[in-house]
Amino acid sequence: MSLLQRPLDLDDIRELDRQDPLASFKTRFALPKGTIYLDGNSLGAQPSAAVEAVEGLMVQWRDSLIQGWNQGWFDAPERLGDRLAPLLGAEPGEVLVTDTITHNLFKLMGYITEGQGRTRLVILSEGGNFPTDGYIAQGFCRFGGFEHRVVPEGEALEAYLDERVAVVVLSHVHYRTGHLRDMAAITRQVHASGAEVIWDLAHSAGALPVDLAACGVRYAVGCTYKYLNGGPGAPAFLYVRRDCQDRGWQPLSGWLGHAAPFAFETDYAPAPGISRFRTGTHSPLAFAALEASLTLWQEVDLAALRHKSQRLIELFRESLSDCLDERGISDITPDEAQRGSQVGLLAPAHGYAIVQALIARGVIGDYREPGLMRFGFAPLYLSHEDVWQAAQHLREVLSEGEYLAPRFQQRGAVT
Amino acid sequence: MSLLQRPLDLDDIRELDRQDPLASFKTRFALPKGTIYLDGNSLGAQPSAAVEAVEGLMVQWRDSLIQGWNQGWFDAPERLGDRLAPLLGAEPGEVLVTDTITHNLFKLMGYITEGQGRTRLVILSEGGNFPTDGYIAQGFCRFGGFEHRVVPEGEALEAYLDERVAVVVLSHVHYRTGHLRDMAAITRQVHASGAEVIWDLAHSAGALPVDLAACGVRYAVGCTYKYLNGGPGAPAFLYVRRDCQDRGWQPLSGWLGHAAPFAFETDYAPAPGISRFRTGTHSPLAFAALEASLTLWQEVDLAALRHKSQRLIELFRESLSDCLDERGISDITPDEAQRGSQVGLLAPAHGYAIVQALIARGVIGDYREPGLMRFGFAPLYLSHEDVWQAAQHLREVLSEGEYLAPRFQQRGAVT
Repeated sequence: MSLLQRPLDLDDIRELDRQDPLASFKTRFALPKGTIYLDGNSLGAQPSAAVEAVEGLMVQWRDSLIQGWNQGWFDAPERLGDRLAPLLGAEPGEVLVTDTITHNLFKLMGYITEGQGRTRLVILSEGGNFPTDGYIAQGFCRFGGFEHRVVPEGEALEAYLDERVAVVVLSHVHYRTGHLRDMAAITRQVHASGAEVIWDLAHSAGALPVDLAACGVRYAVGCTYKYLNGGPGAPAFLYVRRDCQDRGWQPLSGWLGHAAPFAFETDYAPAPGISRFRTGTHSPLAFAALEASLTLWQEVDLAALRHKSQRLIELFRESLSDCLDERGISDITPDEAQRGSQVGLLAPAHGYAIVQALIARGVIGDYREPGLMRFGFAPLYLSHEDVWQAAQHLREVLSEGEYLAPRFQQRGAVT
Repeated sequence: MSLLQRPLDLDDIRELDRQDPLASFKTRFALPKGTIYLDGNSLGAQPSAAVEAVEGLMVQWRDSLIQGWNQGWFDAPERLGDRLAPLLGAEPGEVLVTDTITHNLFKLMGYITEGQGRTRLVILSEGGNFPTDGYIAQGFCRFGGFEHRVVPEGEALEAYLDERVAVVVLSHVHYRTGHLRDMAAITRQVHASGAEVIWDLAHSAGALPVDLAACGVRYAVGCTYKYLNGGPGAPAFLYVRRDCQDRGWQPLSGWLGHAAPFAFETDYAPAPGISRFRTGTHSPLAFAALEASLTLWQEVDLAALRHKSQRLIELFRESLSDCLDERGISDITPDEAQRGSQVGLLAPAHGYAIVQALIARGVIGDYREPGLMRFGFAPLYLSHEDVWQAAQHLREVLSEGEYLAPRFQQRGAVT
C-alpha cells in the first residue's frame, strides 16, 4: 500500500493528522516532551485521568479506611472486567480483572484439566512464544503431573494435537514478530481435537478489535499494562465463556473466590460465575489507574483504531523502505491482515545499539534478544507526524552510524 | 495489671501520652478527624509519606515510561523484602514482597512438598483459622493429589503430626481470638515430626517483635496492609530461610522468577535465592505506598511498640471491665504473653449492631461472625487518649442501648 503516488512530505503528514478521527485522544495522555513513544506494546502511556483516579483512591484510603472495601474496592475485579468485555467481544460477567497473566494461566490450566477429569495429560505451548506462558506451563506440569510439550516455532499445530492434549496455550499476536493468528480457525481446530485452547491476548487487547464470542473462544487471558494503558504492572484479566464457568475449582482457591467470603466457612466452595477465579486481596490503587483508562476506552471506535494502526505501520515502514537492506536489517512485519500493531526490524549485529541510539534521541522502542527491534504503534496517542519523525530519526541513526558509539553498545536491563 | 490504684482520669491518660516514646509517630499518619481507628488489624491507616510516594510513582510512569523498570521498579520485591527483614528477625535476601498470602502459601506448599520428594502427602491446617489458609490448602491438595486435614480448634497439634504430614500451616496470632502462639516451641515440635511449618504472620508482623531466626522458622508468609500500613491490598510477603532457598521449583514459575528473565530462554530455570518465588509482573504503584510505610518502620523500636500495645490493650479492657458481664459480653482477649495486639469481645446477641453503633460515633472496630467484636491496637497512630475515649464510647453505646436502633441491626458487607 502506498498513501500517495509521490514521497510524502510533512504537509501531507499533517493533513493525515487533521483527518484522523482519533486525533483528540492524544490530548488525554500525558507524554513527556520530546518523546516519541513506540513502546506502548511494553508499557502504555499514562492517561491523564489516571492521576486523578489514583489521588482519589489515596483520599479514600485516608478517609474511608476499611469502609473503602464497601465503596467500590471489593467488586472492582468484576466491574473492571465488565468494562473490558466490549473490547474483547465478551459479555458482562465473562471477564475478571485479577492477578497476572502467569497466575491466570495456572488457574485456567487447573480448571480446565479438572473439568476434563484429567483424562488428557499434555499441555501444549508454542516455541518462541513469550516465555512466561511456557514457564508457567512447565511449573503446572511438574507440579500437577502433566506433560509439557512444545510446538517448535513455525511448525503446524495440527501434528501435535493428539488425543492426549488437554490444553493449548497460544498467543493471539506474537510478542516478537507481531504475527496475528486466525483465532476462529485455530479455536475450531483445537476444539475438534477434543482439547481446549487458552488465548493470550497480551498483544491484541487494545491493539485491535478482538471478538472472542465470534471466534468461539472459551478461555483467554491478557494484560492491561500494554495497549490498554492501565499502568505499570496493572492487573491482568481472564475470560471464561459463560457456559464454561461453573465446572469445578480453579487451583488457586482463595477466600475472595469463595461463594460466601464473609461467612468464614471451613470449606472452600467456589463462587458462582466468573468470581470463582479470584484468589486473594487485590490492590484498589492499581485498579484505580486501570479504571480511569478503561473509562476512556469506552469512547474508542475499535474499527477506527485498527484502521489508524495499519496506516501508522505502513507510514513507518514506507519511510524506511530504502535504507534497511544496506545495513543488514530486515523488516519482519507480517502483512496487514496477519499482524498486530507493531513493527519488527531484525538487526542481528546492532539491534540493541540502534535502539539505544534512538532512545537518546527521544524515540522509545524496545529490543528483544536475539537481534529484534520492536516498535509498537498505539493509535490513541501517536500522531502520523510522530511516526514520520520517528522514521526520520531512525534513518539518521543509521546513516550517521550513531549506534556505533560505545555508550550505545553497553548492555543494561531492558524490560 | 492496673496502671494506678485509683480509676484513671483524663489527666492521667494525657500524662501517659506525654511519656510515650512513640507518640510522635501519630503525626506521620493521616487519619480523618473525629475517627478513632481500632481496625488497623484489617487495614492500616495511611502514612502521609505514602501520598508523596504514590504521586512520585505516577510522575515516573508518565516521564520514564518503560525505563521506570530500570529505575527501581524491577527489584522492588527484593528491596522491600530487605526493608521488612529486620521487623521479622530475618536477614537481607530472606524476605520477598510479592502477590498475596494465598498465592504465597500455594507456592511454599508446592516448593516444600517437591523438596520432600512427595514422600508425605498431608497438608495440615487449623480449624477456626482465617479461612483463606484452609481454602488454598484445599485447592492445593485437590489439584496436587495431597490430602487436607484439619486440627479442630483447641485440640493439640501433636496428635495430628504423624509421618504422613508434609506441611502444617499455622497463624502466629489468631485472627479472631488474638491468641499468640509459641512459635519456637511449635516449630521445634513440627520439625521433630519431620514436617515443615509455614507461619502466617498476618496479625503479628508490625504488631509485635517477630524473631523468625531465633524461633528456627524456615518458612513464613504475611501481609502488609494490616499493622504494616502498606495500603489496601498492598502486596504480601514470604520468608524462606537462606539455607532452604535453593531446593527446587515453586509451582507458580513465572518469568520474573527465572534465573535470566531477559534472556527469553525456552525452559524455566529458577533464579538463585529468594527471587525464584516471584511469578508475574507486580504493580510498582502498590509497592510505592508500601515502601513509604516501610521506610517509616525503620525508625520504630519494636520493644517500645510491644510495650505500648500491651498498655493500650490493658487500658481499654480495664475501662470496660465493669460493664460487659451485665450485657452478656465476654472479653476473650488472651493474657499478656499470649496475645497479639487486639482485643476480642464476644457479644453473641448484638455484636454486629454494637460495632455499627460505634462506627456511627467514629470508633471503627470490626465484626467477625459469629458474635465477635474485634478491636485492633496499632501503637504508631493510637494515643492512650484515643483508646480511653473509645472505651467511653463503647460504655455509652451499651448503657444507652444505642445498638438496639434498627439502622444498626441491618447487615451489609463488612470486610
